[in-house]
Amino acid sequence: MRHLAVLTSGGDAPGMNAAIRAVVRTAIYRGRTVSGVYRGYQGLINGDIHELGARSVANIIQRGGTMLRSARSMPFMTPEGRAQAAENLRRHGVEGLIVIGGDGSFRGAHALSQEHGVPVIGIPGTIDNDIYGTDVTIGFNTALNIATEAIDRLRDTAASHDRLFLVEVMGRHAGHIALNVGLAGGAEAILLPEVPHDLDEVVSSIVEAQARGKSSSIIVVAEGAYEGGAMHLKEKIEAACGYEVRTSILGHMQRGGSPTTRDRVLASRLGYAAVEALLEGQQGVMAGVDKRGTVFVPLEDTWSKQKEIDWQLFEIAKVLAV
Amino acid sequence: MRHLAVLTSGGDAPGMNAAIRAVVRTAIYRGRTVSGVYRGYQGLINGDIHELGARSVANIIQRGGTMLRSARSMPFMTPEGRAQAAENLRRHGVEGLIVIGGDGSFRGAHALSQEHGVPVIGIPGTIDNDIYGTDVTIGFNTALNIATEAIDRLRDTAASHDRLFLVEVMGRHAGHIALNVGLAGGAEAILLPEVPHDLDEVVSSIVEAQARGKSSSIIVVAEGAYEGGAMHLKEKIEAACGYEVRTSILGHMQRGGSPTTRDRVLASRLGYAAVEALLEGQQGVMAGVDKRGTVFVPLEDTWSKQKEIDWQLFEIAKVLAV
Amino acid sequence: MRHLAVLTSGGDAPGMNAAIRAVVRTAIYRGRTVSGVYRGYQGLINGDIHELGARSVANIIQRGGTMLRSARSMPFMTPEGRAQAAENLRRHGVEGLIVIGGDGSFRGAHALSQEHGVPVIGIPGTIDNDIYGTDVTIGFNTALNIATEAIDRLRDTAASHDRLFLVEVMGRHAGHIALNVGLAGGAEAILLPEVPHDLDEVVSSIVEAQARGKSSSIIVVAEGAYEGGAMHLKEKIEAACGYEVRTSILGHMQRGGSPTTRDRVLASRLGYAAVEALLEGQQGVMAGVDKRGTVFVPLEDTWSKQKEIDWQLFEIAKVLAV
Amino acid sequence: MRHLAVLTSGGDAPGMNAAIRAVVRTAIYRGRTVSGVYRGYQGLINGDIHELGARSVANIIQRGGTMLRSARSMPFMTPEGRAQAAENLRRHGVEGLIVIGGDGSFRGAHALSQEHGVPVIGIPGTIDNDIYGTDVTIGFNTALNIATEAIDRLRDTAASHDRLFLVEVMGRHAGHIALNVGLAGGAEAILLPEVPHDLDEVVSSIVEAQARGKSSSIIVVAEGAYEGGAMHLKEKIEAACGYEVRTSILGHMQRGGSPTTRDRVLASRLGYAAVEALLEGQQGVMAGVDKRGTVFVPLEDTWSKQKEIDWQLFEIAKVLAV
Repeated sequence: MRHLAVLTSGGDAPGMNAAIRAVVRTAIYRGRTVSGVYRGYQGLINGDIHELGARSVANIIQRGGTMLRSARSMPFMTPEGRAQAAENLRRHGVEGLIVIGGDGSFRGAHALSQEHGVPVIGIPGTIDNDIYGTDVTIGFNTALNIATEAIDRLRDTAASHDRLFLVEVMGRHAGHIALNVGLAGGAEAILLPEVPHDLDEVVSSIVEAQARGKSSSIIVVAEGAYEGGAMHLKEKIEAACGYEVRTSILGHMQRGGSPTTRDRVLASRLGYAAVEALLEGQQGVMAGVDKRGTVFVPLEDTWSKQKEIDWQLFEIAKVLAV
Repeated sequence: MRHLAVLTSGGDAPGMNAAIRAVVRTAIYRGRTVSGVYRGYQGLINGDIHELGARSVANIIQRGGTMLRSARSMPFMTPEGRAQAAENLRRHGVEGLIVIGGDGSFRGAHALSQEHGVPVIGIPGTIDNDIYGTDVTIGFNTALNIATEAIDRLRDTAASHDRLFLVEVMGRHAGHIALNVGLAGGAEAILLPEVPHDLDEVVSSIVEAQARGKSSSIIVVAEGAYEGGAMHLKEKIEAACGYEVRTSILGHMQRGGSPTTRDRVLASRLGYAAVEALLEGQQGVMAGVDKRGTVFVPLEDTWSKQKEIDWQLFEIAKVLAV
Repeated sequence: MRHLAVLTSGGDAPGMNAAIRAVVRTAIYRGRTVSGVYRGYQGLINGDIHELGARSVANIIQRGGTMLRSARSMPFMTPEGRAQAAENLRRHGVEGLIVIGGDGSFRGAHALSQEHGVPVIGIPGTIDNDIYGTDVTIGFNTALNIATEAIDRLRDTAASHDRLFLVEVMGRHAGHIALNVGLAGGAEAILLPEVPHDLDEVVSSIVEAQARGKSSSIIVVAEGAYEGGAMHLKEKIEAACGYEVRTSILGHMQRGGSPTTRDRVLASRLGYAAVEALLEGQQGVMAGVDKRGTVFVPLEDTWSKQKEIDWQLFEIAKVLAV
Repeated sequence: MRHLAVLTSGGDAPGMNAAIRAVVRTAIYRGRTVSGVYRGYQGLINGDIHELGARSVANIIQRGGTMLRSARSMPFMTPEGRAQAAENLRRHGVEGLIVIGGDGSFRGAHALSQEHGVPVIGIPGTIDNDIYGTDVTIGFNTALNIATEAIDRLRDTAASHDRLFLVEVMGRHAGHIALNVGLAGGAEAILLPEVPHDLDEVVSSIVEAQARGKSSSIIVVAEGAYEGGAMHLKEKIEAACGYEVRTSILGHMQRGGSPTTRDRVLASRLGYAAVEALLEGQQGVMAGVDKRGTVFVPLEDTWSKQKEIDWQLFEIAKVLAV
């Protein structure tokens, strides 16, 4: 393989730039040519493909977002779109593709590979950490710190006014962010999509906490944990316990910002591993990390299997909210 | 005056603790006794008044919120409540009161002073900076930095996806925060309560900006700038320009966190000045800063007069969004 | 075991408070009494031992340093000192002790246990991450982020002036911090105590990098990587390559500050695990984390065995500095 | 004037990019052509002059350092060098020059103007705030926050170990940074170049503070406040009071990083004002801010007159260290 390409797809995540840098520099170190595809799969279809040098990725390791940009592409969901994409790769002489994104992006990569024989390797980049096959995804650690810092600030106000705050963090289908920041933020209760919750129990735990001398409380709720979202939940809690409840929805802010050391190191490790694997002939897999170190799992597994939250952590969070 | 007291009232603001520290230590340095009133005017009514020493305020200058807590007090809005408050001050031997808060808090202080002869001095503590008589209020600078940092993060995502973001910052009646963070965040447009705005103009400026090559845009809107708030505005812009618009409401997060150097210095200066003034016999005034340095304005002015936004800055922001 | 105690010893590390909180609340949740020993082993000798409630550890999870304080104790290094310590524990009814600190602190704990039969469990708290038996120590992740942020700032200046910066990070005997922040900071070269380095090679890599178009460079050096330290190294590099070199010694700043999400979660996990293990009859071990999850290793191992740096990371850092 | 140019000179300061952006966009808004000179006066001599568009300065307002880079230029200190510089400006059609830097840079600008009739206007950009004619310089506010944050972190360790920390901040000839961060960091003592200090007094204030119950202390010292610097002072204090003293030299880190809201707003205001003034025919002046708003002072004043520190703040700092 002489020439490989890299793209970012789906929602941006801090550390994507560090991963791009690692892919580009490892390829160059191995004597290969490397191109960047701009705006994800749409750029593949539009032929927005440009060779990158070692200096093209200088001074980006600390930047949030993605220098290659990202975009949704409806055409790529069609066989015609993917045929066009494969054709463009061939025309540019690209013999292998690295896709940085979430499981939706990996489905696209898989289809491209199946239909047109393009060797692809995935790198998990999403703040939600909801990808099977890797213990952590690029961007997750940064998102945790941003959300925890926000909760620390809300706590200043909660403590000054003896108030109850409901904080909604990202995670439509997965509670990894909520669980970690709930524990780290000293939340009274943590509501996750994975755990059926009884509102009465939440309310009574708050009432009891007040009785034990807690004068302020934080409840952390994942985006997808409650139908109707934080605003609906707020009304229910207010009706049930009689307190005024303040709501804060952290939103897209969790997605941006300079990546943490850990996200930069993880991204560097996976970018390096993906290139090495591609050059050694691997394909159709995602590079991830787990207890064994760097691992490669079939792309299909990333969306067909379900990643569990850390149940022990959930138990610890409950004990420590005492 | 042998014994003075200090309380915080209204919404908390970063730097309130630095102001409390300055009041307490200046009083002690001048050989006076000083007490803290907990939970604002409600604590005055409840007699929640405790003497503070120099060490009681150690290690708080860097903390957000207020160690004296704050609370709303309906009873204090009645003559009976204020009579009880005055009685409690007398009982504790307190001869002068320093109130850290916003203009609503100063109305209460004024009433207490008029009805019961309690010498009071106000210190402006609110993130909104909407108090007449001082160029800046305690907490404003910290809130600016938190909001600007959030916009920087959103910009990472906006730039990665060629998106339009609508960011709502605090300011129900005043656009000081929105104006400064809009300029500092490089916003395409800034919507303030003080400026009647034409939605068509906003939309066309965005469309033109895209034509000039701007692929992502940030619009900063003050809480009170648009009826129906950011969500309503979002729908209107989407309908008008056809783009998808993301919304982020920064909310209470702007209120917390460790105060900036400037807020700590301002709070120290005003806390010191308030005690000095009270000991020199001044009362019924707020300590503030303006072009002349530290100044004292009648409490009535703080709510009866209107503070202007910096119109030159508004003009500059428009020019620089080119 | 009815009553247990906790102390912090050695250099402070961010997350120690989160670990104290976890120990205290888990013990209370399990229906036990728990005491805090102030100022480490010296407090044990002085009998500075006080019962803690669930509220005593409220609002500390986000704080740097240690609320129990830490101190060196020469007397505890003597058998007489340890006898006094054991006597004080008995007098207070303490039946088990949890020590949060580094391997030096664990030696002391081990001696106390051997000589007086006090059941002890260690929790690794040190920013250096140089303790055998756990993949990470409490405080390490926070220290990494502080150091990386400092390097990001230095890079602004390095890039603006085409300069060479030499940054010394903590790590007298271990290069874990230097390796991670060197990689994350995009350093041109990383000097570790574990790797014999050839100054000529470092100098020639810098000269070559300039030739490749890099106009500014950062070299990260661990405290113990070079005899004479950063200042000596600076002179040698200047003499060899003719450039002016700026030096920055990050120092104690890396030790403080609010712990990251990861350090809070790790500290909570280990504090919880240590109490559970002590109650189940384990002793003479340190609670740590590795590929298997939470693990317990004999205290002796923590100082007699050597923890390796991540050699693959070292290789990756070299490739990416291309 | 049809065409103007901008350069940055001297040490970089956060907010320089925001000033460049304001100069460029204001010029374009006024229908003028604008060029950037790279690497300061050296670039002027080398003819490193390039036209900038509104998009050239997109997405830089939040970045530290200077996109135009900065460098020392020995040749520019000679009449021949300046003649070459003037010749290059003429050749590029540049009719006016804006120089962002410190008073040393303004001397150069002044000479160029005197000798070759080039209209110049200065913008004060330096973290030290030591320029006469403006209350604040670009970069000062950011440097304050970085230094205060560092002191907050050191305080965690100081408080955990009952230690004395000596923190050296920037300011070879001026104590503005030391004074503000010393006050904001709750320092026990603040040593400035402007204030002759008696070491015995410092030592006795520390000893007394310990007696009053302060168990840890921070002393902030400006770079130029003490002959031999912080290390020499450390030894003297240790000898005098018998405590071990830890030293931290913040150094270049204070110079980098994303500018604060205030620095971005100040830079925008001054960049805008400088262009407006140049177009209105002003020259030989620096744009600054003081009690009257935006002001223009003769360039000569900036280096021939001395800016005072805020003596009232120095008094307040002493009172609050009680």
